[in-house]
Amino acid sequence: MSDTKKIAVILSGCGVFDGAEIHESVFTMLAIAKHGAEYTIFAPDIQQHHVVNHITGDEMNETRNVMIEAARIARGAIQPLDSYKAEDFDAILMPGGFGAAKNLSTFAFEGAESSVEEETMRVIKETHAAKKPIGALCIAPAVVAKALGKIEVTIGEDKGTADAIEKMGAIHKPTNHGEVVIDTVNKIATTPCYMLDANIIQIAEGAENVVKATLEMI
Amino acid sequence: MSDTKKIAVILSGCGVFDGAEIHESVFTMLAIAKHGAEYTIFAPDIQQHHVVNHITGDEMNETRNVMIEAARIARGAIQPLDSYKAEDFDAILMPGGFGAAKNLSTFAFEGAESSVEEETMRVIKETHAAKKPIGALCIAPAVVAKALGKIEVTIGEDKGTADAIEKMGAIHKPTNHGEVVIDTVNKIATTPCYMLDANIIQIAEGAENVVKATLEMI
Repeated sequence: MSDTKKIAVILSGCGVFDGAEIHESVFTMLAIAKHGAEYTIFAPDIQQHHVVNHITGDEMNETRNVMIEAARIARGAIQPLDSYKAEDFDAILMPGGFGAAKNLSTFAFEGAESSVEEETMRVIKETHAAKKPIGALCIAPAVVAKALGKIEVTIGEDKGTADAIEKMGAIHKPTNHGEVVIDTVNKIATTPCYMLDANIIQIAEGAENVVKATLEMI
Repeated sequence: MSDTKKIAVILSGCGVFDGAEIHESVFTMLAIAKHGAEYTIFAPDIQQHHVVNHITGDEMNETRNVMIEAARIARGAIQPLDSYKAEDFDAILMPGGFGAAKNLSTFAFEGAESSVEEETMRVIKETHAAKKPIGALCIAPAVVAKALGKIEVTIGEDKGTADAIEKMGAIHKPTNHGEVVIDTVNKIATTPCYMLDANIIQIAEGAENVVKATLEMI
């Protein structure tokens, strides 16, 4: 048996406005590798909620698949989320981007009343039941909160989002750049990243800090 | 006048097989910011050569625009390459990915006989004529070599690519992970990144080193 920690990274597409936030995803992968752990990248094999032109913000008349687009960040090395088994991994990490709130859940549209995508829900619940840690960045903590209920998380300081999270039964703690909220009972580590008006250095630090906190709970 | 160095980053799409390599692009941006410089991201407003499914490697029956896709990496903050003026910047940085060899040039298909996309050619030549440095990662040095001819570059150790670069009149120096070839006469800094079989830590180091070398020539 190898002692190398095995981490599943769950992506939600490729691009902040309709998929996984790219900087958060890449810095999460880098931080895992720097800490001597290994990552395997997963995404659900489903259609994206929509496709957004990242210059204009307009919806494009196209359909794209979450896993196929996320494979751009993964350089092709990606697995369908339905193949994830908690027994094969030591922790999961969920970068943010609107994909978490549009593809992995309906949080962007329905807030506290949102639902979590089927496989994402299974993966979060299975990992939590196996007492393995979950790290989440940016808006992804809202998905974990919807799935697990009474956990302690942060998405930074946005009041509307924090209120929705509390309405779902979770506890929200405000944070600033690079800070991590650690729920030691439930083994959940979260950090705001681009939920704050952040620069790229602050994103790298936030990813580093939440990955470190997650790995320490293994 | 601000003393902050202004760097133009030129992207070629979003995804290693048909656009800009995402990790190289993000680590280039991070390294520029870490060194206290500012970046502005550019891409040509042209159609991609093609769209590749990054899981299977198959061509997809779609068309995508290089600048619109590159905006995913830029989080929307992107300028059309035809608006670039060398007088507004202190240096340019070109991450790799097949986009450099398929969208910014035809190097992937025609090697030494390739041509460089019109605006990319203008930008490289104008920057070089203004005696401002150019940094390039992965396969992007082949585009710079095609545009400028007799310069010294590296793309790592791939013999076929190196031979094509020499056939275009440039000099190729083999390198390993993280190493940078600096042509001080022409102010060109290049590093192999994913032209070698590299891990993500080595890519971050390569980007850091080539950005540092480029900034030092300003």
